[in-house]
Amino acid sequence: MILRIDRWQSELPPPADPDPAGASIVQELMGGKFGEMSTLMNYTFQSFNFRNRQGARPFYDLIANIAAEEYGHIELVAAAINTMLTGAPSKGESPRNSQQFIAGGKSALPQDSMGKPWTGDYVTATGDLVEDLTHNFFLETGARNNKLKVYEMADHPAARALTGYLLVRGGVHQVAYARAVEKLTGADLMKMFPSPRIPTDKIPECQPHLKRGEHLKLYRFSPEDYREIVAVFNGPHPETGEDLTVIDHAPEGTPPVDLPPETDVFAPDYAPEEIAQIAQKLREAAGLPKTPTGVVANNGGNGSAGDTVKDAVA
Amino acid sequence: MILRIDRWQSELPPPADPDPAGASIVQELMGGKFGEMSTLMNYTFQSFNFRNRQGARPFYDLIANIAAEEYGHIELVAAAINTMLTGAPSKGESPRNSQQFIAGGKSALPQDSMGKPWTGDYVTATGDLVEDLTHNFFLETGARNNKLKVYEMADHPAARALTGYLLVRGGVHQVAYARAVEKLTGADLMKMFPSPRIPTDKIPECQPHLKRGEHLKLYRFSPEDYREIVAVFNGPHPETGEDLTVIDHAPEGTPPVDLPPETDVFAPDYAPEEIAQIAQKLREAAGLPKTPTGVVANNGGNGSAGDTVKDAVA
Amino acid sequence: MILRIDRWQSELPPPADPDPAGASIVQELMGGKFGEMSTLMNYTFQSFNFRNRQGARPFYDLIANIAAEEYGHIELVAAAINTMLTGAPSKGESPRNSQQFIAGGKSALPQDSMGKPWTGDYVTATGDLVEDLTHNFFLETGARNNKLKVYEMADHPAARALTGYLLVRGGVHQVAYARAVEKLTGADLMKMFPSPRIPTDKIPECQPHLKRGEHLKLYRFSPEDYREIVAVFNGPHPETGEDLTVIDHAPEGTPPVDLPPETDVFAPDYAPEEIAQIAQKLREAAGLPKTPTGVVANNGGNGSAGDTVKDAVA
Amino acid sequence: MILRIDRWQSELPPPADPDPAGASIVQELMGGKFGEMSTLMNYTFQSFNFRNRQGARPFYDLIANIAAEEYGHIELVAAAINTMLTGAPSKGESPRNSQQFIAGGKSALPQDSMGKPWTGDYVTATGDLVEDLTHNFFLETGARNNKLKVYEMADHPAARALTGYLLVRGGVHQVAYARAVEKLTGADLMKMFPSPRIPTDKIPECQPHLKRGEHLKLYRFSPEDYREIVAVFNGPHPETGEDLTVIDHAPEGTPPVDLPPETDVFAPDYAPEEIAQIAQKLREAAGLPKTPTGVVANNGGNGSAGDTVKDAVA
Amino acid sequence: MILRIDRWQSELPPPADPDPAGASIVQELMGGKFGEMSTLMNYTFQSFNFRNRQGARPFYDLIANIAAEEYGHIELVAAAINTMLTGAPSKGESPRNSQQFIAGGKSALPQDSMGKPWTGDYVTATGDLVEDLTHNFFLETGARNNKLKVYEMADHPAARALTGYLLVRGGVHQVAYARAVEKLTGADLMKMFPSPRIPTDKIPECQPHLKRGEHLKLYRFSPEDYREIVAVFNGPHPETGEDLTVIDHAPEGTPPVDLPPETDVFAPDYAPEEIAQIAQKLREAAGLPKTPTGVVANNGGNGSAGDTVKDAVA
Amino acid sequence: MILRIDRWQSELPPPADPDPAGASIVQELMGGKFGEMSTLMNYTFQSFNFRNRQGARPFYDLIANIAAEEYGHIELVAAAINTMLTGAPSKGESPRNSQQFIAGGKSALPQDSMGKPWTGDYVTATGDLVEDLTHNFFLETGARNNKLKVYEMADHPAARALTGYLLVRGGVHQVAYARAVEKLTGADLMKMFPSPRIPTDKIPECQPHLKRGEHLKLYRFSPEDYREIVAVFNGPHPETGEDLTVIDHAPEGTPPVDLPPETDVFAPDYAPEEIAQIAQKLREAAGLPKTPTGVVANNGGNGSAGDTVKDAVA
Repeated sequence: MILRIDRWQSELPPPADPDPAGASIVQELMGGKFGEMSTLMNYTFQSFNFRNRQGARPFYDLIANIAAEEYGHIELVAAAINTMLTGAPSKGESPRNSQQFIAGGKSALPQDSMGKPWTGDYVTATGDLVEDLTHNFFLETGARNNKLKVYEMADHPAARALTGYLLVRGGVHQVAYARAVEKLTGADLMKMFPSPRIPTDKIPECQPHLKRGEHLKLYRFSPEDYREIVAVFNGPHPETGEDLTVIDHAPEGTPPVDLPPETDVFAPDYAPEEIAQIAQKLREAAGLPKTPTGVVANNGGNGSAGDTVKDAVA
Repeated sequence: MILRIDRWQSELPPPADPDPAGASIVQELMGGKFGEMSTLMNYTFQSFNFRNRQGARPFYDLIANIAAEEYGHIELVAAAINTMLTGAPSKGESPRNSQQFIAGGKSALPQDSMGKPWTGDYVTATGDLVEDLTHNFFLETGARNNKLKVYEMADHPAARALTGYLLVRGGVHQVAYARAVEKLTGADLMKMFPSPRIPTDKIPECQPHLKRGEHLKLYRFSPEDYREIVAVFNGPHPETGEDLTVIDHAPEGTPPVDLPPETDVFAPDYAPEEIAQIAQKLREAAGLPKTPTGVVANNGGNGSAGDTVKDAVA
Repeated sequence: MILRIDRWQSELPPPADPDPAGASIVQELMGGKFGEMSTLMNYTFQSFNFRNRQGARPFYDLIANIAAEEYGHIELVAAAINTMLTGAPSKGESPRNSQQFIAGGKSALPQDSMGKPWTGDYVTATGDLVEDLTHNFFLETGARNNKLKVYEMADHPAARALTGYLLVRGGVHQVAYARAVEKLTGADLMKMFPSPRIPTDKIPECQPHLKRGEHLKLYRFSPEDYREIVAVFNGPHPETGEDLTVIDHAPEGTPPVDLPPETDVFAPDYAPEEIAQIAQKLREAAGLPKTPTGVVANNGGNGSAGDTVKDAVA
Repeated sequence: MILRIDRWQSELPPPADPDPAGASIVQELMGGKFGEMSTLMNYTFQSFNFRNRQGARPFYDLIANIAAEEYGHIELVAAAINTMLTGAPSKGESPRNSQQFIAGGKSALPQDSMGKPWTGDYVTATGDLVEDLTHNFFLETGARNNKLKVYEMADHPAARALTGYLLVRGGVHQVAYARAVEKLTGADLMKMFPSPRIPTDKIPECQPHLKRGEHLKLYRFSPEDYREIVAVFNGPHPETGEDLTVIDHAPEGTPPVDLPPETDVFAPDYAPEEIAQIAQKLREAAGLPKTPTGVVANNGGNGSAGDTVKDAVA
Repeated sequence: MILRIDRWQSELPPPADPDPAGASIVQELMGGKFGEMSTLMNYTFQSFNFRNRQGARPFYDLIANIAAEEYGHIELVAAAINTMLTGAPSKGESPRNSQQFIAGGKSALPQDSMGKPWTGDYVTATGDLVEDLTHNFFLETGARNNKLKVYEMADHPAARALTGYLLVRGGVHQVAYARAVEKLTGADLMKMFPSPRIPTDKIPECQPHLKRGEHLKLYRFSPEDYREIVAVFNGPHPETGEDLTVIDHAPEGTPPVDLPPETDVFAPDYAPEEIAQIAQKLREAAGLPKTPTGVVANNGGNGSAGDTVKDAVA
Repeated sequence: MILRIDRWQSELPPPADPDPAGASIVQELMGGKFGEMSTLMNYTFQSFNFRNRQGARPFYDLIANIAAEEYGHIELVAAAINTMLTGAPSKGESPRNSQQFIAGGKSALPQDSMGKPWTGDYVTATGDLVEDLTHNFFLETGARNNKLKVYEMADHPAARALTGYLLVRGGVHQVAYARAVEKLTGADLMKMFPSPRIPTDKIPECQPHLKRGEHLKLYRFSPEDYREIVAVFNGPHPETGEDLTVIDHAPEGTPPVDLPPETDVFAPDYAPEEIAQIAQKLREAAGLPKTPTGVVANNGGNGSAGDTVKDAVA
């Protein structure tokens, strides 16, 4: 089971100029064959279905733990898309992904960049450990390919912040799975890096993460479990030679930006202030503080609702 | 983002007689339109896409928090399927869901009971709060319908333990969403319970959960967040009149059963003991204890791998 | 079984400026999850599968009868799309939905606004009456959401006439299903209106229909059957307080506009006049009148074919 | 638009021995590529999208009118499936199509015989008249192939009554489209009959229909419209040489069998008699007669609900 | 089994101005219901599944042989798409088919013009010979319809060269299947030509092929087999009256254009010259000539890699 | 383009006892994610889309050439399925894959073992050479996994002959792609063999192929092209240490078994002897020999049709 923490794994800029075309492209990183729903669900099912966990504990821990990080990735992809759609006009030129407006409230969908839904067909969980790890190494290769392509095709700051971060973190997972294959078979997959040959050291949006050493760290996303990832994730980074490190807790994260209502698509409603009034009454009736207890990036100290947020991003 | 805890939300029996036909039916609760992947992903996307969270904090917290519980549900459905498939012969009569053997290692798939993959089409996240809550109330209604049907169609102890638990917890979510709609609109949805008219008080496998009051409790699945669920989840239970309660932490859970290898489908390999040996060496090289650090239900004190586990469940 | 009447349920303007982008958006109301194929097929299957009809006759009649009206809705959506595509150039900028040109003859497809085909997965027909009615209430909620969004995204007169009409009629169905749930469970769903909060009284294209009281009337679409809808559809309208009324017959309807040939996509052919000549001969050989017996909106008194029609709309 | 008549186009036997495996096979005639949803939707879309109707009126009338008959065919396929599922146990051996029980209430689904949903991809409506008619001729060929195969694979009396009827009526449509192609192009398609070479004269369940001349008649399914079908549907039948005839109204039809509740799948509920009581009160409040006004085949004169029906078919 | 020949069946122009929108439209001829993957796979499966080949040898040979030609058609469609994408910017305006860039390397995909994947549902292989031949005749009719529409919608020289060629060759297949139906049933399908009424004699890009008589020739795509196609493919062409002819070998074909790297999408890599160096070493180590042995249209005598090619097409 | 040779790459036994359940399982090797349609289409699209072929000629030749062999694999899978279905009763117990009977004529379909159609989504052709080769190595790993599972689940002699052969040949492709990755990156993938750990030396049906050294040979499937595969496919076999060899032509193959008609599913017709008579006349009119020119395994010297074949396998 999981505990959920209302923080983003990495910062994204607040909404500025909307970019619905870009937001439709970023969907590939959500619902595409090589998107984050795929990495999340591949590793999740592999961990659910893992037989003989005690016997292969370091490998089970590795897959289960990376699965946990991926949840934060779909969250971040959604956040980037929602940011890019904030303020986008529902009138005028027909958007590239019309369902972001019609099925959603200017929001992310479990679809790829052509509007096709993510499907369970994208999950490979054979139960054969070497095979699954080989698959995962390849999946991360393909995912990095797609991340860089989306980086190039969508230049909105939120898309760039997203892909800059995911390129670095996806690289860690790629290394982790390569190490796991190596430990089991002896094949030196380190020689395959970087694949694709993405020069993250030249991508501006990767720099802050590289500087913090995010390309070297595998976080442990659990209060108590998955301690044996250290048995696999170690040795030198294949590109830089620096030491791979396990961080024994989750990253601190950053409060999410509270995106403003989009009343023309009824998100959360035509009249969000009425919802806010109801919410306020319910909060008080429940003995909660007058200001919302949630922590968000963009209303420091100001707990009032809706409009304030709207002002904040205006 | 999430932290993952390697515990099941509820106990399942260890593998005994395999039941591949039953396991193919239970898939409906995984990948069906009204299965747990649907509840998980509906609420997850609704929470990711929630606009004006501060203004509608109690409702955001409710949806985000229930999404977290659902992750534990897909885990439990997978565990039940895997348990039912343990020891199932890959030879002989063709299984109802052949891909549990061919695509998986006698394991759960992101598919429904007819082998069709789960799809993002099953997600409704409109951004309109009243509409999404109405949807969620209906979704839980449909999910409970399916749970009882699977209860009747699959009488394997693992299937029964699963559905007994899910019927009770799904009922809590149904009540929670009904309460949320009521708070926002005034419509008295409590009168619609039970829907479908499932007499959980007569279902043996529901009793332990009812006795512990699991039909009344909404757990808070977060170290710090989602505190405002109390503002919505309160008042009397529509069927029993007892008080609805928020539990301010996650349930304790129970260690998972470590399912034995199935070497005829290479899960985790033809020769799991070799993997165990490699794992042992890696563990030692990393300075980990000699016995696996993972906690599982079925190898108390005995950290050795593969065969031991096989013995344990034999 | 059905009798078909060659009339539209509501008037649409004749083709003027083509709007292929808008026509691709309107497809959502045809083949989307919340489109008219979905409402048609949901209610149709629910009525086909209805058990114990005599025991629950008023509810059976309600669902079966609304299913009949929905057929007219898919007809009208198709007509709007076809109108918007009339005269659209097949050369030049690639259209948003290329298959309206390639698979069709500048015409409607059983697809949504992203070109994905409608699928039977969109049908929910559980057989549980309360559950199906709850579903239908929600489905109409979602459908109204989509109708307004399409209203905003496609401003072609045909799209506006269509959505103005459908918003009003969909509202009637939403009320009808809410009433049905209330009659069975006592839950006061009237308090949920309007949902989404669509101010139909401010939408110009809704006014003619509201003025004629179309928001209050449930038509009986059958020569003899479905008489018991009056037992459910009664009481005050949740928004206006006016009396809901059953009209004991179908609406009169309006003759369809006969859309002109589009020879560049061979619809109905490169040389429609040759078809017209053959038709004329066949008609005479069969003892039919010289002018076509069909009644259409745009060739009053002039039964000759093809070119005349082309002139009429030019 | 349509008027709906609550009659079946042909009689089916009341439920007797259930046959869920057979019912799963009959689904091919509902949701398969060559099933009745396909014929219905192909002709429906072709008629909606028909350009220059006045110029090609006999052909428009033909397609639009046959579309209307097809609605009765999906109704009959559903009825046969529901009949075959009546009384089927939800416990015990896992059914071939589990979703008939889980997603439905022992009822028909918009799926094929492998449980795959019908999809809009099965619709071909090109707008080119000769092409569409050629397609329709082929579609009916394929549909007849499937009907006979289902006839052989499912020997339940309801399946046999269904396929016996559909083989005859599908043959009429096949002839009609062949005639239409001939009238337009001169190609003598009559020589292709029978295709497939199905000896309907040797199939017992076809005999009553052949004796009534149902293989020769095209009914006009409209109060006023589609009068020009006579211009196409005439001449000798390609197999028997008898005259093809247009009947200027719909067939009389037969009252549907009111299938009993299946309480183990909550269809229409666990406690159908409560629904019946509510219905009774609503009926009286609305000034309707005490006995249901609906006409069904199996409760002559006895309007009481649920149990009575159950007795009637027991 | 097959032998592959590295030649195109017809010439395409080298890349010039990129046309990604056009390339997305041409996809319909690849992965659409009536695209070349459909013709290839329909005839391939029909030939694989053909029962009693000796008894029906001329018909088996016909279908098997046309299947072989279709492989060359999907090759040519891919080549046209790749040509049109060469040099297309991955930055800037979002492309109509984003997956040509993200999933591919500016390259063809097994998708239609709306980005939907080709599916096995598009294959009809009933085993009934007359039915399959009728289907194939219709399929070629639909395919020709789509080819002309793509001709009109995509005016890039590669698209025009492609469709000009395919219109002529598809016409031959349409005639071949019509002849086969005629031989078996006596129905005079020749009267249905041309269908759709496409005036190939007025389409400039068809002229070179018509002049070479390509509309009359059925090639035999096999060293030894399929000799009995002459028994079916004979008689006069339905439009021109000229004699249909069997050519007893495959067409000579033309060397493919070697398309240059697209390094911004890593195709074949960021640094293709490194691959070329490795390739060169491997070639020499294997005793191959210094210049590549492959024959391509655009590097006459110059076997060096990457850059040269880039220059050649610049 | 291709030349087709009417030979199977390996022998299959003639039909004996039918095994429709087994035939439904073997479908996974046809239309499953890791089936032969996937390997065929992955390599085909990668070769079509290959940029800078001259620069990377050995790698292009490798992929293009293996694609050619895969065509023979789908042919063989179809043949095995058709063999297993020959003589299967269409009446009685409902078959696991009903569409093999209803959509086909007791024949193979482009579907997987759960009846789901193959889809273009299964193709990965990124254009990045290292990535595509990594993918292909993994794809062959997964394919071998599935082949062995099908081997175990379907024990019909045709299934066993098929999988015995494919395991050996798939192994060659797996080695080939591993070598290619090694040549480009230096990573020693040979250490990953065998993966999955399949002991082909203990599988009886692999032995004849191993004895002939089929695990070491890469055939060149082209009259003139793909000569540079020798630059990649060389060195020792990773499991046996024997030398990998390129055979400079295609394998000889074996004449296909001519499967008898199945008149109850109209394949090729109800009355195949009539088709044979027509064929005979056409053959003579075309100046062909009296006996069919096709070479099949099971009618040595006897060119007469239908019945003879029926006798031969009776």
